[in-house]
Amino acid sequence: MIDRIAILGTGLLGPSAGLALRAAGFGGTITGWNRGMEGARTALSMGALDVIATDPLQAARESQVVLLAVPIYATLDWMEQLAPVLGPEHLVTDVGSTKAQITAAAGRFFNNPERAGFLPGHPMAGKERGGAALGDANLFRGAVWLFTDDPAWQRSAESAALAADWRKWVAAMGSKTLDLDSARHDELVGWVSHLPQFVATALSALLEEEVGDAPELKDVGGRALREMTRLGASPYSMWRDIAYTNTEAVERTLLALEQRLAHVRENLKTPELRDEFEQANRFRRE
Amino acid sequence: MIDRIAILGTGLLGPSAGLALRAAGFGGTITGWNRGMEGARTALSMGALDVIATDPLQAARESQVVLLAVPIYATLDWMEQLAPVLGPEHLVTDVGSTKAQITAAAGRFFNNPERAGFLPGHPMAGKERGGAALGDANLFRGAVWLFTDDPAWQRSAESAALAADWRKWVAAMGSKTLDLDSARHDELVGWVSHLPQFVATALSALLEEEVGDAPELKDVGGRALREMTRLGASPYSMWRDIAYTNTEAVERTLLALEQRLAHVRENLKTPELRDEFEQANRFRRE
Repeated sequence: MIDRIAILGTGLLGPSAGLALRAAGFGGTITGWNRGMEGARTALSMGALDVIATDPLQAARESQVVLLAVPIYATLDWMEQLAPVLGPEHLVTDVGSTKAQITAAAGRFFNNPERAGFLPGHPMAGKERGGAALGDANLFRGAVWLFTDDPAWQRSAESAALAADWRKWVAAMGSKTLDLDSARHDELVGWVSHLPQFVATALSALLEEEVGDAPELKDVGGRALREMTRLGASPYSMWRDIAYTNTEAVERTLLALEQRLAHVRENLKTPELRDEFEQANRFRRE
Repeated sequence: MIDRIAILGTGLLGPSAGLALRAAGFGGTITGWNRGMEGARTALSMGALDVIATDPLQAARESQVVLLAVPIYATLDWMEQLAPVLGPEHLVTDVGSTKAQITAAAGRFFNNPERAGFLPGHPMAGKERGGAALGDANLFRGAVWLFTDDPAWQRSAESAALAADWRKWVAAMGSKTLDLDSARHDELVGWVSHLPQFVATALSALLEEEVGDAPELKDVGGRALREMTRLGASPYSMWRDIAYTNTEAVERTLLALEQRLAHVRENLKTPELRDEFEQANRFRRE
């Protein structure tokens, strides 16, 4: 049923979605647009796009599904620009990492019978480095693709059917879908995604200060250190909008971990340390 | 030159050393001993040992090199037991994760011309789970094997030659060797090994409390969460002695990270966050 897709944004996720759709058998047209031509050309040359659009709004109008694959504030900007030029025959969806503001905007600008539908989405997949060149048809395989759809929205029949079909393509790309309330989404990803990132950033920054002048010492840490600091390579540009749009949840998780580390520090020689290890073991039980 | 090795302890590292020595072409005899017979039998059946000793002190006397592959306090106990029964024709070495106490004991009980030599060693290799069954001939490949030898020690010519030969076998097992002062060793591994472990433990324990009742939510975190909590599976039994013998260094690293996390938390919406990401990026630059 979906036959024409426009992908706005050719960082890592947009081209990966194009490649994954192709690998899953999508036979329609994929039009792409990016603010910088280099990323768009890379995506085109990889086969993630069929054509590069010069006018993104026109490309959106000519497609059935618009996939916004840009940072969160850019997503919110596109939502305001797209809402007046699209109609009930369109569906817009996104890949933004926080969902409260995007879902609120989706209710405000979309999702009534006279407007385009908007299905807020968030694939839990990525790499610590971005860019079209790292686009990967298997990026979403085995990942969870979250949606924060609101059951109260009244979409046009056409956009509702497109949303149902997009969910099928997400499954065909290899992802498991999970529906969450947008507030619960932001709280949950605060714990399982944002906290691990900010910890890896803080740990990497601290270690750069302590042992960064002696590169041979990094090798000493081996696989464990490499894993615990891999996300330290993530660029600020990828995380700025998350820090701004999920601030309170991230603050809560960071404060909780600070307290937990202090508890470990104060109990290195007491039985409390055993309890802490055993509680951690439970999280990793098979 | 080394032709007879005794390995005391058949957890993960002892059998891995046996297998790695074999893979590197060691043609001599490897005698093993373990407090529990099951681990010893597993190591024997894997080919990591040639024979299981019933009397560890006799096995040590009949070997040239004794590899202590047991936890830190057990290593210290063995050092006291072995020193009086071995002589200048022997070398003892170990794999303990902290080196200040072991190196001090090595100076006290070993390393004079009338005594056995003791070469304090620490391969930076391991797994988050222990046991002979996980023994792996490639465990030390690409790892750094640290030594905290003291240039002031005056070893017998024979034990000095065995120490030099043991270093060659360590290289043959695929490890890069690095010599450090024992105090610097404990400080360094506090940063690059112990801190990452205690962070993973605290993070895993915290997440068990927050999302542990909803296993499907763990999947949401994907690869990043799996990596950041893999070490959460490490057992207390493996880390207790480290917490006890490197307490001050670990306290310092934990306190430094707590302060760093608080700094991130207080600056989620300021340019300081960019600086923190850029500093972290530097740690991970290729």
